[in-house]
Amino acid sequence: MNYKMMGRFMGNILLVEALFMLPAGIISLCYGEVNTMWSFLASAAITLAVSLILRLLCKGAPSAFYAKEGLVCVGLSWIAMSLFGCLPFWLSKEIPLFIDAFFEIVSGFTTTGSSILLEVESLSKGALFWRSFSHWLGGMGVLVFLLAFTSEKGSGFTMHLLRAESPGPNVGKLVPKMRSTATILYLIYIALTVINIIFLLCGGMHLFEAVCHAFGTAGTGGFGIKNDSLAGYSPYLQNVTTVFMLLFGINFNCYYLLLLRQFKNVFKDEELRLYVGIVMASILAIAVNIHGLYDSWRETVRHSAFQVASIITTTGYATADFDLWPSFSKAVLMCLMVVGACAGSTGGGLKVARMMLLFKSLRRNIRKTLNPKKVQVVRNNANVVSELVVENANAYLAAYVIILFASFVLISLDGFSVATNFTAVLACFNNIGPGLEAVGPTCNFAGFSVLSKLVLCLDMLLGRLEIFPILVLFSRSTWKR
Amino acid sequence: MNYKMMGRFMGNILLVEALFMLPAGIISLCYGEVNTMWSFLASAAITLAVSLILRLLCKGAPSAFYAKEGLVCVGLSWIAMSLFGCLPFWLSKEIPLFIDAFFEIVSGFTTTGSSILLEVESLSKGALFWRSFSHWLGGMGVLVFLLAFTSEKGSGFTMHLLRAESPGPNVGKLVPKMRSTATILYLIYIALTVINIIFLLCGGMHLFEAVCHAFGTAGTGGFGIKNDSLAGYSPYLQNVTTVFMLLFGINFNCYYLLLLRQFKNVFKDEELRLYVGIVMASILAIAVNIHGLYDSWRETVRHSAFQVASIITTTGYATADFDLWPSFSKAVLMCLMVVGACAGSTGGGLKVARMMLLFKSLRRNIRKTLNPKKVQVVRNNANVVSELVVENANAYLAAYVIILFASFVLISLDGFSVATNFTAVLACFNNIGPGLEAVGPTCNFAGFSVLSKLVLCLDMLLGRLEIFPILVLFSRSTWKR
Repeated sequence: MNYKMMGRFMGNILLVEALFMLPAGIISLCYGEVNTMWSFLASAAITLAVSLILRLLCKGAPSAFYAKEGLVCVGLSWIAMSLFGCLPFWLSKEIPLFIDAFFEIVSGFTTTGSSILLEVESLSKGALFWRSFSHWLGGMGVLVFLLAFTSEKGSGFTMHLLRAESPGPNVGKLVPKMRSTATILYLIYIALTVINIIFLLCGGMHLFEAVCHAFGTAGTGGFGIKNDSLAGYSPYLQNVTTVFMLLFGINFNCYYLLLLRQFKNVFKDEELRLYVGIVMASILAIAVNIHGLYDSWRETVRHSAFQVASIITTTGYATADFDLWPSFSKAVLMCLMVVGACAGSTGGGLKVARMMLLFKSLRRNIRKTLNPKKVQVVRNNANVVSELVVENANAYLAAYVIILFASFVLISLDGFSVATNFTAVLACFNNIGPGLEAVGPTCNFAGFSVLSKLVLCLDMLLGRLEIFPILVLFSRSTWKR
Repeated sequence: MNYKMMGRFMGNILLVEALFMLPAGIISLCYGEVNTMWSFLASAAITLAVSLILRLLCKGAPSAFYAKEGLVCVGLSWIAMSLFGCLPFWLSKEIPLFIDAFFEIVSGFTTTGSSILLEVESLSKGALFWRSFSHWLGGMGVLVFLLAFTSEKGSGFTMHLLRAESPGPNVGKLVPKMRSTATILYLIYIALTVINIIFLLCGGMHLFEAVCHAFGTAGTGGFGIKNDSLAGYSPYLQNVTTVFMLLFGINFNCYYLLLLRQFKNVFKDEELRLYVGIVMASILAIAVNIHGLYDSWRETVRHSAFQVASIITTTGYATADFDLWPSFSKAVLMCLMVVGACAGSTGGGLKVARMMLLFKSLRRNIRKTLNPKKVQVVRNNANVVSELVVENANAYLAAYVIILFASFVLISLDGFSVATNFTAVLACFNNIGPGLEAVGPTCNFAGFSVLSKLVLCLDMLLGRLEIFPILVLFSRSTWKR
């Protein structure tokens, strides 16, 4: 293990994080929140100090860097980022308990959006901004940011980190250089976020609110700044958010292809087609199921579309309390929780591409049983998928199921209902935010014990980093010489 | 496809089924239930007639028979068996609706034990016997019976059928001839059942009750003959049942090895050790969790052990309403539902061996990521497991998850609670019997719609036959020339 290189890299991550705390401090200053401002400055100073010590200790690192180090580095970076990122909440005493502050920021960085806050409107503007900004940073990834805009060297290094932090079964390079890929992705991300803000401003939203909501939408996070999430906003603003949530759930490679005017390739993309198909079918099914609850079909479809978009992209905003909807709608939403968004988007869950891969590999195996002598391959967009990718998708599902049930048992110790516990784990593990019953859209995670909160934090990290970067931290062979 | 061979084989299956209806008819006669007796005789006559027609039509079948035909044959046989097996309930009007009668017998043959009956004590003795006997037949498999005790020819034929009907990721031959393997398995099965009956008689149980309960235990089925399942029986009888449920959840190969005095191999068997470990840990965890609910630790452990044995072996008998237990105990039981019994036993679920295989293949994949250049294999009892078996276990999990969620959405249309719907599917798909809330141990499946009942019937068949024999019936490439 190249500990020095990892140390230096984590030093850089913390440096970036310290800098990113400053905008929130400035906003606190603008709104005259002195206490909050100082807590942001103090947190930034502490983070900066640790960062500099790490960089000093790890000077002259050898450049050899393998997949193993990449995974470990990503896992540890996210844990470190969360430990320092929760300091502003804790120091300003806006969230008095450290575990709660930690839960909140892990939920932020992992773009989950589950909260332990009973209500958010009494929070300072600076804290609200930091919550939403953490979504935006976590969505595309802080490591990807570092790779995109700083001068980290070593192509193997970049590749391993990008692979470990990016979601999806098979990370594609857009251009030969990984670093340029990272830059292109971030530029698309920034552009889409700005367009989202403009659309929200056109609907009469205040600038601060528009920025926070756009951050939450872009990262598919879901922290709102109102107690009723987006229920109180106009239909126009809700519809804009629906559209942008869905857009941020699409593989960013598609946007790059659009920029290159390769419209045919985008249109033919199997994952995108399936994603659109699932969204349409779910909106229709739920609208038919709930139409008695609302005055008009127009309103019904608006609520159905918003909730479907929010859940499948794993954002977690709400315009209606879907815990009160009929069982069928709840079951559809629970399935969408598991499916998740497209690979290479900011969304969570199993990912549409991986579901497709699992389905195809299952079909292949049935055919193999029926015709044992014929060679059968799995294809995606007419290309043969390598057996390693298929194997990894299957291993991913196994890990997913094991973690899901283990977490479910552990948090059941708190004595909430079966539906609460199961959907709490689903909501955290798939980075969604709200679940059903005691963790429904109008409720929160404050009632859980410290153990359960830690388990759920781990689930959120496992979900965001797609299991392996966290799992290797617990593997003996990682730490063996 | 060798349709003639399949037709002849199904004719034989129905012939055996017609003969097996006669004992129930005789019991009806003994208890003076004339109406029930006639319904059994009429059902047997109809089944016999169809059987003879099939055998007549399919004379002179070619002997070529492949894996594909084996799978299709098993799938169709089980559906046919259920269609004719429900006739006695329906003709005697003890279960007036055909779909209910069908549900009940599918639940019987698949050893699920879910019932649509509001109460069972008013049922005739003949019908009660037929319900329990269907568990016993379904447990080891009617096809296996046919292969064990009749003169079906063709070793390829025998092997493909046995593979398709036997549970577990990797079917082992005990002796070179598949037919002798089937005979040995059935003889062990019969011997264990007889021992179980003797133990129950020693506890003062009436012969009829002892036979019915032993059938339900041996097949890991769970149909009782009392409304309160086994809650009303003495602690001795409950404990005997606990032990025998656990014994029938063990791979029957172990018993064969015991007969050969290969004690070391049995003791070293990884699956058996894990099974015992899971059972012990679950009993302990639940006992600690529920000990406030009962008067003494002795009683607590008895109830905990009984329910753990009943759920992990997927039997479904109950001595306590575990729906009233704390969430943690319910969560542990839900996990046991998914894990299931050992491969090669009469139990359902994913199977301990398959769980172990998935876990090992996951660990292998992590190691592969950490050390890409090292060759990594999956081992079981120190033998290398073939990649095809690992691949099939993974495909199995994918199919399992997809079917689980699809069924969950479909039965949610009826509007029961999330926990009811989810555990109803778990209980049927894993061939357990009771779930939680509206399908808890003291409730039944009568409230579901026809669509839901059909979905649950399909789930039970998918669970008992380990998915593929039913899934291939829906695959286009099966029916292609």
